[in-house]
Amino acid sequence: MSESYSNRQFRLARRPDGLPKRDDFELTTEALAEAADGEVRIKVDYISLDPAMRGWMNEGKSYIKPVGIDEVMRAGAAGTVLDSRHDDFQPGDKVAGNFGVQTHAVFPGKQLRKVDTSIAQLPTYLGALGMPGMTAYFGLLDVGALADGDTVLVSAASGAVGALVGQIAKKKGCHVVGIAGGAEKCAYLTDELGFDAAIDYKSDHVGKAIREHCPDGIDVYFDNVGGEILDAALANLRLNARVVICGAISQYNVSGAMGESMYAPKNYMSLLVNRARMQGFVVFDFTQRYGEAAKQMAEWIASGDLKHREDIVEGFDSFPETLLKLFSGENFGKLVLAVGD
Amino acid sequence: MSESYSNRQFRLARRPDGLPKRDDFELTTEALAEAADGEVRIKVDYISLDPAMRGWMNEGKSYIKPVGIDEVMRAGAAGTVLDSRHDDFQPGDKVAGNFGVQTHAVFPGKQLRKVDTSIAQLPTYLGALGMPGMTAYFGLLDVGALADGDTVLVSAASGAVGALVGQIAKKKGCHVVGIAGGAEKCAYLTDELGFDAAIDYKSDHVGKAIREHCPDGIDVYFDNVGGEILDAALANLRLNARVVICGAISQYNVSGAMGESMYAPKNYMSLLVNRARMQGFVVFDFTQRYGEAAKQMAEWIASGDLKHREDIVEGFDSFPETLLKLFSGENFGKLVLAVGD
Repeated sequence: MSESYSNRQFRLARRPDGLPKRDDFELTTEALAEAADGEVRIKVDYISLDPAMRGWMNEGKSYIKPVGIDEVMRAGAAGTVLDSRHDDFQPGDKVAGNFGVQTHAVFPGKQLRKVDTSIAQLPTYLGALGMPGMTAYFGLLDVGALADGDTVLVSAASGAVGALVGQIAKKKGCHVVGIAGGAEKCAYLTDELGFDAAIDYKSDHVGKAIREHCPDGIDVYFDNVGGEILDAALANLRLNARVVICGAISQYNVSGAMGESMYAPKNYMSLLVNRARMQGFVVFDFTQRYGEAAKQMAEWIASGDLKHREDIVEGFDSFPETLLKLFSGENFGKLVLAVGD
Repeated sequence: MSESYSNRQFRLARRPDGLPKRDDFELTTEALAEAADGEVRIKVDYISLDPAMRGWMNEGKSYIKPVGIDEVMRAGAAGTVLDSRHDDFQPGDKVAGNFGVQTHAVFPGKQLRKVDTSIAQLPTYLGALGMPGMTAYFGLLDVGALADGDTVLVSAASGAVGALVGQIAKKKGCHVVGIAGGAEKCAYLTDELGFDAAIDYKSDHVGKAIREHCPDGIDVYFDNVGGEILDAALANLRLNARVVICGAISQYNVSGAMGESMYAPKNYMSLLVNRARMQGFVVFDFTQRYGEAAKQMAEWIASGDLKHREDIVEGFDSFPETLLKLFSGENFGKLVLAVGD
């Protein structure tokens, strides 16, 4: 018998209508199961809070099956190995995986990724060296087919993905404009991350600002938000532009999401006029190539060339309220929940 | 002095609001100019009436500059050489070019294309062997990246472009479903052109019919119409689908077109879920490769493998009213105006 642990979990109690509320989840406690052969027991230290989680709570066909009612809420996470029945892992190892919103997990070793905290702290493996990093890298370079000298516009630009998109584009010699909410985030983009310009969607006329900062039009628009900002970008495309649909956070909490009331881009015919394309992607499709991206991102981070910022909120129990920071735009950097002891 | 001809012309008198009316044009008569060195004088026999013409009447930035007020309305056409000061052309030669909506034209020889009426009648050079043919060929094969065995959906399927798209897709071993208005057009698609199924948008529930005829989803949707049909197609995409935006005829006559009141596709996030792309194109970008397509299309026509149908309306003076057949869906096949003597 190995040591016993008490595992606390947020389970999806019902499908949220609009913004998720505390009542949409149930907080349960159970004994952590023993590890079977090949399995590892983990103390979860950090849980990744991502916009995509809102979509996983909805019923219906999507790129991944919805979280079932009464199931532990799905989430990426990072933690520490407690004990192991898999040869590759030892107690104390730092690991990342899809542990969900719980304080502990039992996981097959082959579904774990061992991480090197000499390169970056553990929470960074949920950000620049995790799913957001892979998303920025493949979304911009592959789906966006970035070319040297392109004019790149990115929304939610101070967020986990957007900040990386802009910095990678700068490394490729591009003219980079970011859209974010508020003067502080905009200053961060230009002063700390090296963006060429920032647009504050809370105080600027976005369309006018795009025309000012992208006078010859946009080659790549990396969209994290959807809604009217997508329409403003569509109205300013350049010939052969690529619109990368990564997300639509402005729309995820529309009641009856994916249905009648989603904001619809009325300027889509700009795709014809400009011989442009709009393309969606899901980062999981690039799993086979994560190694390539992770190596490059780690090099840039180690050399200090790529800045990253995590917004770490303490306290497992605050999960439902902390998640909402993503949708109000309150987070500043990659939003991470620190589980605590 | 060569022979004198009286040239009648439809000039754009003002920018139409909604459907173009006769009053939006002025019918003028002038003496046909003499041919300068390198020029050719042409008797126009057939004028191509195309949905794109509606867009050319609008002010504002598009893929081609708008027709100016008082200018002869732009149009593709085909005719007979009257006299020539260009070595490549002799009186009696059949030629095609952008002659505009007029009974005669003086054109530089290098802007003319000599056509071979032993392969097909002259009007066919405005359809399957003209711009609609090039549009279908490059839009489907290049922009749509057609692959063997794909499920292909095409709207305005009995129209000049749609009928060719469906037949080319059948030649490539695809499962082809067409959307058209009315039982007669639908029967033409399945019985004469070999489509696998036809959806009558006037009587069928389009979304339900798509699900029935494309049970595994759509690989390529070739869109000529926009509006709710585009949304129904988006809702039924397959993984890695391609949506080819060729036109949006349902929307061209919205008052204040390209602006506030265009129908906007609310299901665009299906592009993300299905890792799909939506791409616009303009056939003129493929000019350098027209030879390749024209050769292939002519072979298929000569062998009887590719059927084509022209809807020829007699009478130059009826231009404004005849054009409207495109927008009411009254035309059946490529709409052509026969100029007469």
